[in-house]
Amino acid sequence: MKRGETVEIAPVFDDAFKRRLTDLFAWRRDVRRFKPDPVPSPLIEKLLGLAALAPSVGNSQPWRFVSVETLSAREAVIANFNACNVAALASYEGERAALYASLKLSGLRDAPVHLAVFCDHATEAGFGLGRTTMPEALDYSVVAAIHTFWLGARAENLGVGWVSILDPRQVSRALDVPAQWKLIAYLCVGFPLEEHLDPELERHHWQAHLVQNERLHRR
Amino acid sequence: MKRGETVEIAPVFDDAFKRRLTDLFAWRRDVRRFKPDPVPSPLIEKLLGLAALAPSVGNSQPWRFVSVETLSAREAVIANFNACNVAALASYEGERAALYASLKLSGLRDAPVHLAVFCDHATEAGFGLGRTTMPEALDYSVVAAIHTFWLGARAENLGVGWVSILDPRQVSRALDVPAQWKLIAYLCVGFPLEEHLDPELERHHWQAHLVQNERLHRR
Repeated sequence: MKRGETVEIAPVFDDAFKRRLTDLFAWRRDVRRFKPDPVPSPLIEKLLGLAALAPSVGNSQPWRFVSVETLSAREAVIANFNACNVAALASYEGERAALYASLKLSGLRDAPVHLAVFCDHATEAGFGLGRTTMPEALDYSVVAAIHTFWLGARAENLGVGWVSILDPRQVSRALDVPAQWKLIAYLCVGFPLEEHLDPELERHHWQAHLVQNERLHRR
Repeated sequence: MKRGETVEIAPVFDDAFKRRLTDLFAWRRDVRRFKPDPVPSPLIEKLLGLAALAPSVGNSQPWRFVSVETLSAREAVIANFNACNVAALASYEGERAALYASLKLSGLRDAPVHLAVFCDHATEAGFGLGRTTMPEALDYSVVAAIHTFWLGARAENLGVGWVSILDPRQVSRALDVPAQWKLIAYLCVGFPLEEHLDPELERHHWQAHLVQNERLHRR
């Protein structure tokens, strides 16, 4: 130990914590039904602080969060969702189409907080490290930040729903973000109306949990 | 309540858990220095079970994990990393090149466990829901599973390092996986030699933590 160095002692994650962490993973739902109660701003700030602890390629930290607050911006996003959803519905037939039409696929009307999450493709942070052969790792870093936000939110009893039924270029234009920001996710955030252990798409018979014969392939 | 329904009571995540969860996010490192100690197979199985709790678009669960075990497969991956790393080094000049050359960018030689993680683009699970306008959401689902695995591993004092300095097509070919599996990440897994609170790329002065003036943009 040199003088001035700080001692770093890693925390111990005991069995009680690990059980609770498993609960957190298991009870993290994609929420589409929200209470109207507002979400305190400091709570969102806290969760953004957690998200910034996510791994990123080259330590590039390329996540950019946009809170969508004005009525006009929200209406543009909702109109885009509705158009994309009608188009998606047209790709199904028969019972599958009827089932699709019955699903609630977003909480855009109810969620008190809307967060559009972008990847800054113009960032110089990270100096390109790790991005030569797999440039998509930059986008993946933003996904890690989103998932960190999501888990942190669940621990605060806050629900998050990820909407991907959107045209990313149209949403980016409606939100007037820099041209090199790529939309990764559009999140609805708020306190959930209901708590469930099973995903909505399992509960409503869209897609069951997959039991993989081989969870781990070997080479 | 109908007969036969199970009562679902969401767990309470108390302040002590939330503090520990923050520690987990803060101490989750990208590890490149591993002890030679083997990782018990049941521990990997447990972590894959946690990873399967990750969110996925349309509940498609497209993650596929390949344990790379044979000497020939590992040598092919290491040779690919070395070639890609030499090419990446050539893109830097002067001090930055010297710094790049000094970094330890993978633990491929030391890590007892190698996991290649793929996204199955041929899966019919999820019936395409949520993938019409943002098909990349399928790949993002695999990133969420990887990050869940990573956090679960950290809670077990197990280190994970994500290697992206690889040619994904060449690695896929070397591992002889189905043509429609896309490589998302190559993970080195093992018990870490050292524990650090700061990322390796900060500690070695490659890229500092970004202090963003505006953590949340508003529209």
